[in-house]
Amino acid sequence: MTNHAFYMDLALQNARAMKGQTDPNPLVGAVIVNNNRIVGIGAHMKPGEPHAEIHAIRMAGEHAKGATIYVTLEPCSHHGRTGPCAEAIVAAGIKTVVIATLDPNPIVSGRGVKILEDAGINVITGILEEASKRMNEVFNKFIVTEKPFVTLKSGITLDGKIATHSAHSKWITSADAREDVHHLRNEHLAILVGVNTVMEDNPELTTRIENGRNPIRIVLDSTLKIPLDAKLVTDQLAQTWIFTSVNYDHDKKEKLINQGVQVFHTTGTIHVDVQEVVRILGENSISSLLIEGGGTINAAFLENKLIDKAVIYIAPKLIGGKNAPTFMEGSGIDLMSDAVELIDTEIQKIGKDFKFVGYPTYK
Amino acid sequence: MTNHAFYMDLALQNARAMKGQTDPNPLVGAVIVNNNRIVGIGAHMKPGEPHAEIHAIRMAGEHAKGATIYVTLEPCSHHGRTGPCAEAIVAAGIKTVVIATLDPNPIVSGRGVKILEDAGINVITGILEEASKRMNEVFNKFIVTEKPFVTLKSGITLDGKIATHSAHSKWITSADAREDVHHLRNEHLAILVGVNTVMEDNPELTTRIENGRNPIRIVLDSTLKIPLDAKLVTDQLAQTWIFTSVNYDHDKKEKLINQGVQVFHTTGTIHVDVQEVVRILGENSISSLLIEGGGTINAAFLENKLIDKAVIYIAPKLIGGKNAPTFMEGSGIDLMSDAVELIDTEIQKIGKDFKFVGYPTYK
Repeated sequence: MTNHAFYMDLALQNARAMKGQTDPNPLVGAVIVNNNRIVGIGAHMKPGEPHAEIHAIRMAGEHAKGATIYVTLEPCSHHGRTGPCAEAIVAAGIKTVVIATLDPNPIVSGRGVKILEDAGINVITGILEEASKRMNEVFNKFIVTEKPFVTLKSGITLDGKIATHSAHSKWITSADAREDVHHLRNEHLAILVGVNTVMEDNPELTTRIENGRNPIRIVLDSTLKIPLDAKLVTDQLAQTWIFTSVNYDHDKKEKLINQGVQVFHTTGTIHVDVQEVVRILGENSISSLLIEGGGTINAAFLENKLIDKAVIYIAPKLIGGKNAPTFMEGSGIDLMSDAVELIDTEIQKIGKDFKFVGYPTYK
Repeated sequence: MTNHAFYMDLALQNARAMKGQTDPNPLVGAVIVNNNRIVGIGAHMKPGEPHAEIHAIRMAGEHAKGATIYVTLEPCSHHGRTGPCAEAIVAAGIKTVVIATLDPNPIVSGRGVKILEDAGINVITGILEEASKRMNEVFNKFIVTEKPFVTLKSGITLDGKIATHSAHSKWITSADAREDVHHLRNEHLAILVGVNTVMEDNPELTTRIENGRNPIRIVLDSTLKIPLDAKLVTDQLAQTWIFTSVNYDHDKKEKLINQGVQVFHTTGTIHVDVQEVVRILGENSISSLLIEGGGTINAAFLENKLIDKAVIYIAPKLIGGKNAPTFMEGSGIDLMSDAVELIDTEIQKIGKDFKFVGYPTYK
């Protein structure tokens, strides 16, 4: 690792440690180095509180003069609650600024760098850029598209099934992997399933870890066939939002609203239009969506190129069954050359199972 | 790692390096340590040539006196081409023998240890025992059961498919993974597919690596519907053995035999009886069998508890398709508690893909 990468990695580590406490702001970390000595570290910790650079500059004090600052995101140029960080860096007498990634917002991207360069500061960009982008993948997508970052989660057997041929699925994965899923839920503002999952499993879709935050529960239900006594309708543990096609049951809608459920309509004629679902969620400030659907729901999102990330837990089990369901159904592609490839893939062991993470790339 | 494990690991490494050149003998390695210095190393390299212990004792010369020998397999007690190793160890004046695993053959297991202990030598067993057993997994099964060690191989997409819904499968995995498969074939004496794979893909099932050895090609074909112009029938690149049920086409059998194909019969009425296939292969000295079948063949072996090891290449691709085939079909189990769990699982990256290895455990 070069020195640049070493210090930037420390800034990334501090930034990542604040995961979940900076929303709606991104994770940012900073490290100030003077004469090969670290003189200041900082991270953005809470909305309304100082940005990472300000914390680090305060810590460095006089040692900031002539120093190099490593910051995981381009210093801001706007007059927010803590003033433009780019100007604070200039004022502190810092000589070199090393940046992992520019601001993802095209409206302001590059402005921080311009302030720094206009003040005669040496600016280096692109150090550990990919790692920084991945760290704020949700923020980066939402700020640019105003649509949620969509993560598909599934738990499968080694032979690719999400249930036996008789629809039994308790449990595919081990307790360790299932607990990991609750951490995933905790990181997402909304969780989505199809109405068939509700009918079969009657799930709560809550976050069962200490101090866990429950995501808003989204159900795709084209006609509104969801049972009125489903836990998602009655339990009040979190909001439930239902999306329909144009062919929904109007009486049922009134009853659901009376129970506190929100109902949204899409222009889909047979199925719920998933493009509209994602757009509407974005309009309602949902920046992150976790899909825990069955094969039909998942395929609808894949075919519409809406899955940004896949997290697949693979249990080392064989169950067989020509008719056992898989997590990606629909009609599927014809030729292997049309497969959706995933990049930046990783697998780690979680208990007995393996956790796969990857990012689909669409043609 | 303890000292014992350190030296035994070196013995295992030397043993493994001889993979493929000791058949039908097992892989064995030895290390001799005197006064914390390695004074001899050895491995069994070729049938008819000295065993690992003999090489190491010769190398150690006078330093064998009072030394400790680490050997991955119990020293032999029989008068073969190189005499009983246990007696050679006694004669060399070795004081301590550390053994990874006892001889798997129940008829002679423990005899080597007895010779050593009767001579007053200190014997320690069970150091890196599992690793040593895995290293000779094929030998160990065959010597005890006279049936081949059966490895299931498949290449699948992340969503669990082995082909698109329209049966297109070129290619699921990347070139790196496909080359790895040829190394797998090289290590096996026989490779097995169903006749449907022959009809669809017309494969050669040969080993396409430098100096590769072609396995005997086994086809399960209950009625003998294999085309007479299939490559497996005509290409003479390796032997082809076909297994039938009782309901086979007698005329076709004559034609196949005339083309040099061997035909074996099982007492299966509709399908080929896979238990009998495995038994007959064992009787014909086939100690290792690689299954590259489709979902039906694979499920038949799984249901009969015949799969000893699974090697699954997982390509980071999504292809969807409710009707796309998976590698394990059949009727499948009803309840997740009846799943076949795999143990000693490992995943490594091979090019873009992941290679999963695990060992099914049957109830």
